[in-house]
Amino acid sequence: MTTEFIFDFRSTGSTGSDVLGGKGFGLAKMTQIGIPVPPGFIVSTDACKTYYEQGGTLSDDFWEAFDLQLAVLESETEKQFGGSDDPLLVSVRSGAPISMPGMMDTILNIGLNDDAVEALAASSGNRHFAFDSYRRLVQMYGEVVEKIDKHAFDKVLQLALRGENAASPIELSERGLEELTANFKRTFTKEVGKPFPQDPYEQVHRCVMAVFESWHGKRAQAYRENEGIPNTLGTAVNVQTMVFGNLGENSGTGVCFTRNPSTGRKELYGEFLQSAQGEDVVAGIRTPEPVTEMARIFPTAYNDLLKHTEALEQYNRDMQDIEFTIQQGELFVLQTRNGKRTAQAAVKIAVDMVEEGLISEDEAIMRVDPADLTHLLLPQLPENHGMDIVATGLGASPGAAVGFIALDADIAEQRAQKGEHVILVRPETSPDDIHGFIAAQGILTAKGGLTSHAAVVARGMGKPCITGCEGLDVDLDARHISIFGVIYDEGTLITIDGTSGSVIIGEPDLVEASNEGELDVLLGWADSKRRLKVMANADTPVDARNAKRFGAEGIGLCRTEHMFFGEDRLPKMQTMILANNVEIRAEALEELLPIQTEDFYEIFKELGDSPVIIRLLDPPLHEFLPDKSEAASVEIARRIEELSETNPMLGMRGCRLGLVYPEIYEMQVRAIADASTKVHEESGVWPHAQIMLPMVGFISEMIQLRKNVQAILDERTVPDVPIGMMIELPRTCVVAEEMTQAADFFSFGTNDLTQTTLGFSRDDAENTFMGKYTEDGILLDNPFETLDVSGVGKLINIAVDSVESGGHHMSFGACGEHGGDPASIEFFHAAGLDYVSCSPFRIPIARLAAAQAALSV
Amino acid sequence: MTTEFIFDFRSTGSTGSDVLGGKGFGLAKMTQIGIPVPPGFIVSTDACKTYYEQGGTLSDDFWEAFDLQLAVLESETEKQFGGSDDPLLVSVRSGAPISMPGMMDTILNIGLNDDAVEALAASSGNRHFAFDSYRRLVQMYGEVVEKIDKHAFDKVLQLALRGENAASPIELSERGLEELTANFKRTFTKEVGKPFPQDPYEQVHRCVMAVFESWHGKRAQAYRENEGIPNTLGTAVNVQTMVFGNLGENSGTGVCFTRNPSTGRKELYGEFLQSAQGEDVVAGIRTPEPVTEMARIFPTAYNDLLKHTEALEQYNRDMQDIEFTIQQGELFVLQTRNGKRTAQAAVKIAVDMVEEGLISEDEAIMRVDPADLTHLLLPQLPENHGMDIVATGLGASPGAAVGFIALDADIAEQRAQKGEHVILVRPETSPDDIHGFIAAQGILTAKGGLTSHAAVVARGMGKPCITGCEGLDVDLDARHISIFGVIYDEGTLITIDGTSGSVIIGEPDLVEASNEGELDVLLGWADSKRRLKVMANADTPVDARNAKRFGAEGIGLCRTEHMFFGEDRLPKMQTMILANNVEIRAEALEELLPIQTEDFYEIFKELGDSPVIIRLLDPPLHEFLPDKSEAASVEIARRIEELSETNPMLGMRGCRLGLVYPEIYEMQVRAIADASTKVHEESGVWPHAQIMLPMVGFISEMIQLRKNVQAILDERTVPDVPIGMMIELPRTCVVAEEMTQAADFFSFGTNDLTQTTLGFSRDDAENTFMGKYTEDGILLDNPFETLDVSGVGKLINIAVDSVESGGHHMSFGACGEHGGDPASIEFFHAAGLDYVSCSPFRIPIARLAAAQAALSV
Repeated sequence: MTTEFIFDFRSTGSTGSDVLGGKGFGLAKMTQIGIPVPPGFIVSTDACKTYYEQGGTLSDDFWEAFDLQLAVLESETEKQFGGSDDPLLVSVRSGAPISMPGMMDTILNIGLNDDAVEALAASSGNRHFAFDSYRRLVQMYGEVVEKIDKHAFDKVLQLALRGENAASPIELSERGLEELTANFKRTFTKEVGKPFPQDPYEQVHRCVMAVFESWHGKRAQAYRENEGIPNTLGTAVNVQTMVFGNLGENSGTGVCFTRNPSTGRKELYGEFLQSAQGEDVVAGIRTPEPVTEMARIFPTAYNDLLKHTEALEQYNRDMQDIEFTIQQGELFVLQTRNGKRTAQAAVKIAVDMVEEGLISEDEAIMRVDPADLTHLLLPQLPENHGMDIVATGLGASPGAAVGFIALDADIAEQRAQKGEHVILVRPETSPDDIHGFIAAQGILTAKGGLTSHAAVVARGMGKPCITGCEGLDVDLDARHISIFGVIYDEGTLITIDGTSGSVIIGEPDLVEASNEGELDVLLGWADSKRRLKVMANADTPVDARNAKRFGAEGIGLCRTEHMFFGEDRLPKMQTMILANNVEIRAEALEELLPIQTEDFYEIFKELGDSPVIIRLLDPPLHEFLPDKSEAASVEIARRIEELSETNPMLGMRGCRLGLVYPEIYEMQVRAIADASTKVHEESGVWPHAQIMLPMVGFISEMIQLRKNVQAILDERTVPDVPIGMMIELPRTCVVAEEMTQAADFFSFGTNDLTQTTLGFSRDDAENTFMGKYTEDGILLDNPFETLDVSGVGKLINIAVDSVESGGHHMSFGACGEHGGDPASIEFFHAAGLDYVSCSPFRIPIARLAAAQAALSV
Repeated sequence: MTTEFIFDFRSTGSTGSDVLGGKGFGLAKMTQIGIPVPPGFIVSTDACKTYYEQGGTLSDDFWEAFDLQLAVLESETEKQFGGSDDPLLVSVRSGAPISMPGMMDTILNIGLNDDAVEALAASSGNRHFAFDSYRRLVQMYGEVVEKIDKHAFDKVLQLALRGENAASPIELSERGLEELTANFKRTFTKEVGKPFPQDPYEQVHRCVMAVFESWHGKRAQAYRENEGIPNTLGTAVNVQTMVFGNLGENSGTGVCFTRNPSTGRKELYGEFLQSAQGEDVVAGIRTPEPVTEMARIFPTAYNDLLKHTEALEQYNRDMQDIEFTIQQGELFVLQTRNGKRTAQAAVKIAVDMVEEGLISEDEAIMRVDPADLTHLLLPQLPENHGMDIVATGLGASPGAAVGFIALDADIAEQRAQKGEHVILVRPETSPDDIHGFIAAQGILTAKGGLTSHAAVVARGMGKPCITGCEGLDVDLDARHISIFGVIYDEGTLITIDGTSGSVIIGEPDLVEASNEGELDVLLGWADSKRRLKVMANADTPVDARNAKRFGAEGIGLCRTEHMFFGEDRLPKMQTMILANNVEIRAEALEELLPIQTEDFYEIFKELGDSPVIIRLLDPPLHEFLPDKSEAASVEIARRIEELSETNPMLGMRGCRLGLVYPEIYEMQVRAIADASTKVHEESGVWPHAQIMLPMVGFISEMIQLRKNVQAILDERTVPDVPIGMMIELPRTCVVAEEMTQAADFFSFGTNDLTQTTLGFSRDDAENTFMGKYTEDGILLDNPFETLDVSGVGKLINIAVDSVESGGHHMSFGACGEHGGDPASIEFFHAAGLDYVSCSPFRIPIARLAAAQAALSV
C-alpha cells in the first residue's frame, strides 16, 4: 500500500500533479524527456493526507518503502547515504499541487554528519565547502524540524564573523567554519535538549514530516485562505540528490530564459556565476556574467544547455525560465517554468511562436494579458532612469509625461499655446479644468483615487495621470507645490510616470513605445475571433482620430457635456441655465447651436460611415455653474443655490433635464441633423449618427423623449436616425422588455448602474469606506473598475434575458469604465452583449479581451 | 334580427350591462323588482356597433322594430307619441357599459311639436310648463343633433330675459316663453337651413343616432383614453317616458340616501322640492326641505318611497343614493346607485349591514377604503367652521391642530413645557427640529412636499402637518410669519387642518373623532382574514404605546438615530464623531451607553414579549453635526468638511458606518442586551429583541457584522437575539439568496430601495422634476407613497422568489412609507411577505388593507 505513496522521478506513469505536487510533477517530466535532473523521488500528497489522518505519523511499512527508494537513489548515483566515501546528500522540498511560493520549508544537505562531512571534504577536495554545507544543514534542520528560533543561530554566527572580521560565512576560514559548525551543534543541543542527529535516516524522515507539518503552518494557512486553495489538498515532498555549483572553477550556477523576456527576441538570455551556488547570484556580491559567456568557459555544458532549453521550450510550448547548476563540468537542470515577460515580449513571443508552428493563433491570443497592452502605446519611464523618485501616488493612467508644473487649467492652456509642455498639478480636478487636461501632457493630483475625476478623464484622453499623491501639497495662493515639505515653484520641470505612480523632478530620458508590428498581427487574429464589437468613448475630433487609429468600429458613446466647457461655450451655457424664461433660454441655445453643430461635424468627418452614438446632455446643470461664492451677482447666487441638490447623482439630470427643459435636447438634435446634412453635402456620405438618451427609467419618459426627438428629425431631410437609450438604473434593467416599445438600441451605463445598484456614490465611497473595505477583504475588486458580476451583472442578465425571451432582437452595448476592463469584458461577452465601448487608449485591450472571452467559453 | 337590438325595461332576461349599458341595466332591474320607473326601453350596444359598422346608418328593419316598441310604450302609458291629446314625451339618454359621467349627450321632451305643445298645455293645465318644455327640446335637439353652437341660443335667451327683466327662463311669462320658443325655432332654421322637425319619429330617430355619434365625440374619446376604457364597447341608448315634478303643488322632485351618509345611521336622509325639476334642486334658488317632510305633504308617495328605497337597498346590498320625482302625486324612481359616504359612515354601515345579515364580513371589509381610516383617529375641522382660510398647503398628515405659532423647536419645547399648545412653523424642517415635533400639536412648513422631512416625521408621529404652504413666508430674524403679505407674530393662535391643508388664524371648534366601536369590530374581522402581520415603526415609548393602542403586533422598525438628537445626547454624539482616535470615541460612546440602554428599556417595557426589531445606526454622521458655518472651532469645521459628501445618500452610512467604526454598533448592541436583562430582572419576561443591520449590499459585510454583533451578545446572558438585515439596495435584491447564509430575517427598506432603483433622490426629485412628471403624466403616482410595482416591486419579487426557490424559510417584512399604503400593501401580500411595518397612526389602515389584499386574491 505504502508504495503508492512514493514515485521515482523516472516512472510516474500517468499520475498527475494533484498527487505528485507541481514541483515533483515538473521534475519527473523533465527527467522523463531526458533533461539532466539530479535523481530523486516524490512522496505523494496522499502520504501527506494519511500523515494527518493518522494524527501525525506514518506507518513502518511506509518508512520501509521510503528507505528502499533511498537505496535505489544510492545505486543510481553510486553514492552512499551517510557514507564515509563520497556520501549521498539529498534535499527535501515541499511541492503542493498549486504553487505556494515561499510558503513552506526546504532542507538541504541532508545526510551529512560528523563522519560524512569529512568524507565530503575528501571527495570534493574542498573542506571549506564541506563544513559550509554541514553548518547549513544543522541550522536549517534546527529551525525547520525542531523549531529553534533563528536568532539562536544568528547570535553564534555573528560572534564567528566578528572573530574573523568577515562579512559573511563564505569569507570565514576553513577553521572558522569548522568551529561555527561545532558551535551550531552546541546551540542545537542546548535548545532541543539532545544532540544533532547523526543518523541520516532519522534526519531525512524527520525532514519529510516537518514539511508535512508546514502544510498547516500559519503562513501557509493564511496564504491558502487568501488564494482560495483548499486545505485538503495536502503537499507532496521531493527528495532529490544535491548538486553543487560551488565545487571550484569547473562548477557554477545560473538562470536563463529561452527568449529575451524584455524584447521577446529569440535568443538565450540569462546570467551565470562560476563556482557559486544559487543564492550567491541573488546576494549580488559577485557580478554574474551573461549566459552566452558559458560557451567559452564550459563549452560542453553550454551546448547541453542550448539543447535542453530548446527541448524544454518545445515541450512546454512557452518561453521558459530555467535554473541550472554545473557540478564539476556536468550540467543539471534544477527547475523550469513559464517565464515572466514584458508586455512587448509577450506580444512578440506569442506571434513568433505561431509563426514557428509551436502554438495556435488561439493560444497566442490567450498568452497576452490585455491589461498590459496599454504600456505598448505610450512613452515609458525606463527601469534605470537613475533619478530620484520624490513622491509616489496611484498610477491612474499609464505612460510617462514631462512638462512644467502648471497649477491651474488656464496657466496650462496659456503655456501650451506657447508650445510648451506642461503637467497640470492640482489638489484635485473638476469638469472646470477640462481645458487644462487638453493642454497638459499629464495630470498629477494630491487627492482622489483610481476612479476620481482626474483619473477617469485622463484615461479617457490617454494621458498619463497620477492621483492621490502622498506627500504632495498644492498651494494655489503661494503658487507652488511642496513634496514632503520641499517646495517647487510653478514652472518647475517635472516628470510623472502614470504606470508606476512615480514623480521625478527634472527630465529623465523616456523610452518610446516600440511595436514591431506583432501587436497588429495579434490584434488582427483577435478581431477574427471575437464576437463583441469594440467601439470608443470619444467626444472630440482628437478622440475620434485616436479611436480609429486603435481600431474602434465606431463611437459607442459620444458624451456632449464636455463640449460645453470650452471658453467660447461656457458663458452661453450659463446664460441658458440662468434664464428664467423660455425665450432667454431659447436665445442662448440658438447661440450654442452652430458651435454644437460644428462639434458633431468634425466628429462625423473622422468617422465616415461608422456609427456615432451621441448621448444627449446628462449631468446636473449646476455642474456648469461656478461655485456659489464666485457668483457674479446675487441673482446668480440665488439660482446656483436653487439648482444645488442634496444628492445630485440621483437628481435633476439625464433625460429628466431633457423633459423639463425640452429646448436643450431640441438644440442638440438640430445640431446632429445639421451636421449630418453638412457632411453629406460635402462628401456624399451620410454619417451613421444615432441618438442615445441618458438615465431613462420609465417607458413614459422614453415615449415622450422619442416623440420630441423624432419631431425635430422629421423637420429635416436626414435619413433615419436610430433612437436608443442608456440602461443605467436598476429599474430600467427589470423593465427592459417594456422599453423595446420605444427604444431602437440599449447601452448599459455601468458607471451609474454600479452606483445605484450598490448604493455607492463613486467619489464618496472611494474617499470614505472603500479603503477599509478593500483592506478587510469585504470588497475584492473596486466595482468601478471591474464589474460587480453577482450584483450589477445579474441585473444586466435580467435585462438581456427578458428582452430576448420576449422575442425582441435588440442591440446591447456597455459603455463606461468597464468597457475597457478585461474581466468585465469577459462577462459582457457571456451575457450576450453586442458591443463594448471604452476610451480610445483602451481599444486594443478591449479587442484582445473580447477575443479571449470568445475563446474561453 | 333587429329585434335583438331592442329591450323593454320589463323583459331583459339574462342580458347583461355589456349589452344594455349600465344605466339601462339598472332601470330594467328596478322595473323588474317592482320599483315604479317611468316605462321605457333600451337600444343595445350591439346596435351602436352595427351603426358604426354600417358607416353611420341603421337598417329600415331596425327602425321598424324601434317604432313598434314606441307603440308598446304608447299603449303602456295610454298616451300617444306626437299626439294632440295628452302626448307621450320621451327622453333619449346614453348608457355605456362603464359609467362615463357627463361625457355623452341627453335629449329630453322628445315628441313635442307645434301641435303637441298645445296638447301638453291643455292636458297639464300649465301652458308655462308646456312651452318651457318645448323651448328646451328645440335647444337640446339643435345643439346635440345639429351641432348648433350653444351661443346662438344663448344670445336669443339673453334678449328675452332682458325684455322681461328676468333672471332665468323660469321667471319668464307664458307669453315670453312662447316667443322664446318661436325665436329658438327661428335660430334653428337659420343655423340648420331647414326648420325644426315636426315629425316626432324623425326627432327620436335622429336623437338615437346623435347619441351613438357622441360615443366617438372628442370628450368621450379623451375620457376613455385616460380611464383605459376600450373604444370598441359602444354605448346603449335609453328611451324613457318623461315624468315631470314641476306640474304644480302635487308634484315634486328629490334625492335621498337610504342611510345617513355622514354618520351611517339607518334613517332616510335627503331633500326634496315641491313643484320642481331636478335641476332646480341643484340651482339652489329655492331651499329644499328634508325628505322626512314628505310624510306630511305627500303621505302616499312618502310611504311608497320608504318601501321602494328599502327594497332597493336590500336588492343592491348597499346604501343607495336615489333620485325620484312625484308627478301629480305619483312617485317615480329615476335612478339609484351606491351612495358616497364619510369614512365614519362607511365603517358603521358596513358593520351594521353584517349585523342585519345583508352582507358578509368579507364584503364589509371590502366596503371601506383603508386610506379613509386615518380621519377617524384625529380631531377634525368641521365642514362649517365659519372661519376664513388664510392659506392652503399640502395636506401632509391628516387631522386638525390648534396652537400658538412657534418659529423654532426650542421655543416650541419651552412653551410646551409650560403646558401650552404650539404649532411649529418653519420654512422647512430637519432632524435638528425633532424636539420641536415632539413638543408641537402640529407642524406647518412653507416648503417641502408630501414626503419632505416634516411630512414623514409628522405622519410617523400621527401629528397634523401641512407642507408646501403657498403664500407663507417665515421670517426667523423678525420672528414673525407673513401669509400673502399679512404679518402674524410668533405666539399668534393658529389652526391647521392637515386633512385639507387649510390654515386658519384663531381657533375654530374642532370635532373629536367619533368611533362608536364599529371600527374595532371591523378591524377585528380584518385581523381574522389577513395573512400579513402588521408591525409599527416606533422609536420612542410614546410611539410604542400608540403602536399597541392601534393594534400593532410588535415593532418592525425601531430606528435608533432619532435617539441621538436629544439635548442630553447630541453633544456626546458629536464628541464621538469628532474624535480623532478610538480612545476618545470609546469614551464618548461609554457616556452614550446608559442613555441608549434606557431608551431600549422603556420601549421593551411597552412591548412585553412582542417583537422589537431594532435597526442599528443608519444615517451619515454629518447629520449629527451643525452646519459648517456654525462650527465652534476651526478643527470642528475641518471635520465637518471632511465628513461632507457629494451624495450622502449613497455614501458613508448604514452598515458601512458600522464596519468602519465598529465601536458604535458595539455600544448599541450592549445597550440592547443590557436593557433586555434589566426588563427580565424586573418582570421575569425576556423582551423579544431583534437586531437589524441597514444598507447591507454584500454577504461579506453581513458576515463581518454578524460576527461583531454576536461577539457582544455572547459576552452577555441574553437569550438568542435574531440578527437580520434590511434589503434596501438593488444589489441586495439580486443576491438575497446568498444573504440567507448570514441573516436570520429580511426587511425591505422600500424608501431607500425606491431611491436607488429609480435613481431618484427623494428630496431632490420632489423639488425638481417630479412636479413636471406628474403634470405630464410621466408618473401616475408618487413612487415614494405608492410602491413602484413594475420596478421596485419586480426586485422585491426577485428577492423573495430566489430565497424561496433556494428552499430557505425566511421572514420578509417591509418597512418605510409604503408599509402603510393600501396599494403597496396589496402588492406586499401578493409578493408573499410576512409583515408590513408602518407608523403607529397607519396601523389601522394597514390592518384593513392587509385583509382586503387577502380577500382580493
